[in-house]
Amino acid sequence: VHAFKRPSEEELDHSYLWRTDHHAPARGCVSIFNRSYYEEVLVVRVHPEIVTKYQRIPAERIGSLDEFWEKRYRHIREREVEGYDNGTTTVKFFLNVSKDEQARRFLSRIERKQKNWKFEAGDMKERALWDEYQVAYEDAINATATPNAPWYCVPADDKKSMRLIVAQAIRNEMDKLHLEWPTLSEKETAELGEYKKQLLEELGESERA
Amino acid sequence: VHAFKRPSEEELDHSYLWRTDHHAPARGCVSIFNRSYYEEVLVVRVHPEIVTKYQRIPAERIGSLDEFWEKRYRHIREREVEGYDNGTTTVKFFLNVSKDEQARRFLSRIERKQKNWKFEAGDMKERALWDEYQVAYEDAINATATPNAPWYCVPADDKKSMRLIVAQAIRNEMDKLHLEWPTLSEKETAELGEYKKQLLEELGESERA
Repeated sequence: VHAFKRPSEEELDHSYLWRTDHHAPARGCVSIFNRSYYEEVLVVRVHPEIVTKYQRIPAERIGSLDEFWEKRYRHIREREVEGYDNGTTTVKFFLNVSKDEQARRFLSRIERKQKNWKFEAGDMKERALWDEYQVAYEDAINATATPNAPWYCVPADDKKSMRLIVAQAIRNEMDKLHLEWPTLSEKETAELGEYKKQLLEELGESERA
Repeated sequence: VHAFKRPSEEELDHSYLWRTDHHAPARGCVSIFNRSYYEEVLVVRVHPEIVTKYQRIPAERIGSLDEFWEKRYRHIREREVEGYDNGTTTVKFFLNVSKDEQARRFLSRIERKQKNWKFEAGDMKERALWDEYQVAYEDAINATATPNAPWYCVPADDKKSMRLIVAQAIRNEMDKLHLEWPTLSEKETAELGEYKKQLLEELGESERA
């Protein structure tokens, strides 16, 4: 599991897809990203000054902002195609919390002392940009939902239902991989028999039933 | 400068573009790759068993081998587009050594004692596949030469000419970046004058001419 927060200076000085790729799963493994490169077309889209001020991308390579987001959608789609062709399927979840439910969750962070540490005033500022975020989510999801790298948009006000839906979706995706236990050759299976005999002898046990 | 040799097991267990990307240059920096991800459509194309045996890519994601190399060309093109859009230009050099010149260089490694360590019997095996390599180079270069990520194919039998051509090409590419020294604001320039005065006083020197 990798949680991606504010990028470091070194990360800002590379392609925005650089830092997440370091945590790409090895063959046979699963990586879970809590936030991801999609922030680069969500929070960054709502605050485009990040591109010029912090990521310092040359103006002539940005073009118009509309072109710029289209370019980023393409980079992301192509990275996910590349991952797929190399054996890694990307599955994306949008946990769709309503504006009222967000208010309730923030309130609980304010009202319950043990949750106070979780409350950030900055979250209130982003909440004020709710409509901008909705447009950013809609555009990003439409532009990057592909058959081999699907988006699951999950109603998330009710956590239990959300978890059930996500678990089922992961199961569906894993079924598509047709995973099988590794099998041994006849020779290797025979050798296992030998090793078993040897180990039982060492333990002074006779052949098991 | 990064030289890429045989990939590690960890690297083989990721997309073939994973390991080189770790060494992608930061903003304002230059990375020089000695060999690169292009080996993945050159030596790997001449020895395609690497794909199934070592990289262990699932058969259904490989498709036909012809499709497979086209997919890899696309991944590479798209990575270079992404780099460009983020401010990094990729420039590729094919140092074109003739078959006779290669024979001469191998001979010199055999005949000169101090060069013996450089000779590898494996190189003789690859030399026997010369024609296959020529096809792989031609296809890869044609498929990945783009205006923003050019290939320079440089005659390389004569090392001095080769170096001159490469240096000129790098100069051309750097000119396209319109690099400028950072400039200071008037206020910052005025402050520099203050600091200069302070330092000269500490040294006990009077104002310089």
